[in-house]
Amino acid sequence: MVRLRMVVAYDGTDFRGLAPNHGVRTVVGELQEFLTRMVGHEPAIVMSGRTDAGVHAWGQVLSFDAPGDADIDRFQRSINAKFGPEIVVREISVADEDFSARYSAAGRRYRYTVVNRPTPDPFLARTAWWVPHKLSVEAMNEASSLLIGEHDFSSFCRRPKAPKGVDGGVEVSLVRRVTGARWLLHHEPDVLRFDIEGSAFCHQMVRSIVGYLVEVGRGRRSTAGLADTLAARDRSAAAQPAPPHGLCLWQVDYPEGPVGLE
Amino acid sequence: MVRLRMVVAYDGTDFRGLAPNHGVRTVVGELQEFLTRMVGHEPAIVMSGRTDAGVHAWGQVLSFDAPGDADIDRFQRSINAKFGPEIVVREISVADEDFSARYSAAGRRYRYTVVNRPTPDPFLARTAWWVPHKLSVEAMNEASSLLIGEHDFSSFCRRPKAPKGVDGGVEVSLVRRVTGARWLLHHEPDVLRFDIEGSAFCHQMVRSIVGYLVEVGRGRRSTAGLADTLAARDRSAAAQPAPPHGLCLWQVDYPEGPVGLE
Repeated sequence: MVRLRMVVAYDGTDFRGLAPNHGVRTVVGELQEFLTRMVGHEPAIVMSGRTDAGVHAWGQVLSFDAPGDADIDRFQRSINAKFGPEIVVREISVADEDFSARYSAAGRRYRYTVVNRPTPDPFLARTAWWVPHKLSVEAMNEASSLLIGEHDFSSFCRRPKAPKGVDGGVEVSLVRRVTGARWLLHHEPDVLRFDIEGSAFCHQMVRSIVGYLVEVGRGRRSTAGLADTLAARDRSAAAQPAPPHGLCLWQVDYPEGPVGLE
Repeated sequence: MVRLRMVVAYDGTDFRGLAPNHGVRTVVGELQEFLTRMVGHEPAIVMSGRTDAGVHAWGQVLSFDAPGDADIDRFQRSINAKFGPEIVVREISVADEDFSARYSAAGRRYRYTVVNRPTPDPFLARTAWWVPHKLSVEAMNEASSLLIGEHDFSSFCRRPKAPKGVDGGVEVSLVRRVTGARWLLHHEPDVLRFDIEGSAFCHQMVRSIVGYLVEVGRGRRSTAGLADTLAARDRSAAAQPAPPHGLCLWQVDYPEGPVGLE
């Protein structure tokens, strides 16, 4: 057997998320079914990071095992012929035998796109959140800078369900290290991109952060409010999460270098 | 009555073209039906330029008449609420009483987008032609420069149907003036944009030109071949037209200035 590594892009619009989930259409569910026929066994596909229903990926990384004589170029062609352009294998290669798309990953970068115009954009409707209210990028970036560093992001995470009998005191750490967080005015007027990177992210963390920062951009919340919310470690202090369709898992870094760069 | 001018963007994917056409879903067909209820009569909607099935627009201009007391901001809001983000009214204004989206137009600019990578792009699947073969932008631009000026574009146009009894000799001129034609490497790697502008374009002219230029980029046709094809005034000398979904009516110019600029 060989360990394979694939860099996969997908339009998440018509999937119910990434991970296999019985009875619903998911990205890895579809790939697993197809690969089972190609490799002769059901491969255990490891994902670099989960994406929720409606969230996209440009540089999702998947790892799995295949027979040593597998023709990996044919894998790529077959998957792209079957699922492209909705799911596209951008790269495929043989990895070290102990490579794990998830556990070997050193960092992840997500990108969130906002169209900030009075009217929506037909061409970005599937991949960007339309916010018609005037936003201050300066205020959003001032607040974003507070996120950098190691923090307990409990206010911005959907807490994993507590095991039965544990009285609210779940022992799962929601401390994460954010290494970069910045809004950029995109090349197209009124298209804003938020790039955030860190070692790992907890559930709904990016969407919750974006939801808050857009409130800051509208002047309804402040940088000081963000500091208080972080310190509160209480999800009820946060804003409504931004919708999933603006979010994209952009790139995953590994010790040997980033994967999925353009 | 007042003459109104709207700048309209649409994703043409799920329309059978622009102009009203009985029994099929078209952009202006949908707008006409909706506006009939709003203005109390069926408005004669004039289009700056037709777009075929699957072709998009960012800056299509439409003109029509409405009662003098019409609330045009409400028109825009109502259309966008009903049809957005698939069809979006970007701007609406009162025009001179003799304004015609079609006859007042001094120039049109179309944009054609090509994704030139070994694998397709999930996010540009609706709006760009995926060409996996390596293209030479330099060769394509050398050939494009031949198009500038006034030419008989018979080789690149679908000739209007001949009236019965006229033996092929239709008296419709296919002479057009092209004022600019250039491929640009887009901000995203491997995304090519072709911008072509001129006073007017005949049917399938941009797609036929792009089809030819991509053949030049692949090395299967040449700049000299393009010169011969133009001179031949014979559609059978041309290449296969590029597919409709990469094409977008980008902007229309009027004597008082361009409309639909970002």
